[in-house]
Amino acid sequence: MAKSVTYHAVPGIPLIAPGDDLAALVVESLNTAQLPLISGDIVVVAQKIVSKAENRYVALKDVVPSEKARTLAGQIGKDPRYIEVVLSESEEVVRHRPNIMIVAHRLGFVMANAGIDQSNIEHVNGEERVLLLPRNPDAAATELKTRFDTAFGVNVGVVINDSFGRPWRNGVVGVALGAAGLPSLLDMIGAPDMFGRPMQMTEIAVADEIAAGASLLMGQAAEGLPVVVVRGLAFDAASRPASALVRPRERDMFR
Amino acid sequence: MAKSVTYHAVPGIPLIAPGDDLAALVVESLNTAQLPLISGDIVVVAQKIVSKAENRYVALKDVVPSEKARTLAGQIGKDPRYIEVVLSESEEVVRHRPNIMIVAHRLGFVMANAGIDQSNIEHVNGEERVLLLPRNPDAAATELKTRFDTAFGVNVGVVINDSFGRPWRNGVVGVALGAAGLPSLLDMIGAPDMFGRPMQMTEIAVADEIAAGASLLMGQAAEGLPVVVVRGLAFDAASRPASALVRPRERDMFR
Repeated sequence: MAKSVTYHAVPGIPLIAPGDDLAALVVESLNTAQLPLISGDIVVVAQKIVSKAENRYVALKDVVPSEKARTLAGQIGKDPRYIEVVLSESEEVVRHRPNIMIVAHRLGFVMANAGIDQSNIEHVNGEERVLLLPRNPDAAATELKTRFDTAFGVNVGVVINDSFGRPWRNGVVGVALGAAGLPSLLDMIGAPDMFGRPMQMTEIAVADEIAAGASLLMGQAAEGLPVVVVRGLAFDAASRPASALVRPRERDMFR
Repeated sequence: MAKSVTYHAVPGIPLIAPGDDLAALVVESLNTAQLPLISGDIVVVAQKIVSKAENRYVALKDVVPSEKARTLAGQIGKDPRYIEVVLSESEEVVRHRPNIMIVAHRLGFVMANAGIDQSNIEHVNGEERVLLLPRNPDAAATELKTRFDTAFGVNVGVVINDSFGRPWRNGVVGVALGAAGLPSLLDMIGAPDMFGRPMQMTEIAVADEIAAGASLLMGQAAEGLPVVVVRGLAFDAASRPASALVRPRERDMFR
């Protein structure tokens, strides 16, 4: 029989609001869908609902743009208050052009707009809000893992994913912002190839590959499927957080 | 019931040699594994076995390095003949450092070493060989698709994948070099978000996400699982080849 891995989109996850107990809502949806977790499962959770539960909203009317934000906003062609929020979440502006701003997020992710979303944001009483990334995605993944483990009496992994654009290639792909209970970066150093010589390829970004596979099922925002259970993967390596996927600046050839 | 997608690693694919009928060998393994294809399946095939079937081997003893290759080889610290082969497959050297050479491949992929593999290469009578990427991965995917469609009386998709390193993030991920029968790049322009406004995110690199998901099962080279069947995805968009994933140089901010 073929070795296989299945991605299940969890139906029935409600719209998430600040202060919601996200773990409890996911557990409830899993139970309702008759999809109880088993050990080894990896639960992929969209960044957006983690951020919403953490109330990472910022109302643009409360933002006072700095001089730097105003200048950049003019060059990029966006609201200076929005640019100010992006800058507040960033360590460095890596590139900018009209309509495009690539930054290094405070967590090290090099990404457009510091991951700050303007789509799928409810306008409350006509007020514009943007949504920041979770405060600490690895910590959020760890907390979800603990809650899921307890609820089902199991040992699972959790990935918090987002979609990133990339240099050189069109289109966005799913990427891991946070992870717990799995080796986000799998070290292949020393593993011999099929002919016994050491492999050239040394590390596999396992959590990013899982994030990408799950992202396919989450699909269009309109579908509203922000949680995916991945069943059938097995790793014997030690767990590593998603922060291990961030390349240190001094080893970066493209900044 | 949850919407689900399953990745099946196809067991029993033999070691592939130049001139092998790759499509026939995959069909035979699928039949032996009692995993006949059904319409909508996407068959992911590792670049390496496509290249081997196409006899994309180059024996280093037959390579005469150019002056440029010798100079680069000194700076990078690799065999000048190997560098010559990389250059012969490349349009441009994007970055180089000791041990690292990032080029734009003739097909537009920006990648390390033009994808030329030194691992998993058999040494024939002590002779060193390297393996180039397939001549035309989209064409190879189309040919495999036609053969699979005919063999099973179905309409499937095919992705030829490889593993790429990336700027800013550690570890390699699966990427689509060639594709047929699926929308490699899925255009979301005009699709409204959950609150009815146009989405910011415009294109999803579907074939790359499939390539990444499949790459997880192919795993370590030592396992030798170079073919994965993905079942359960459905697209209503028109097919687009993997070449649609290559960003044109003039829209590239990182070269």
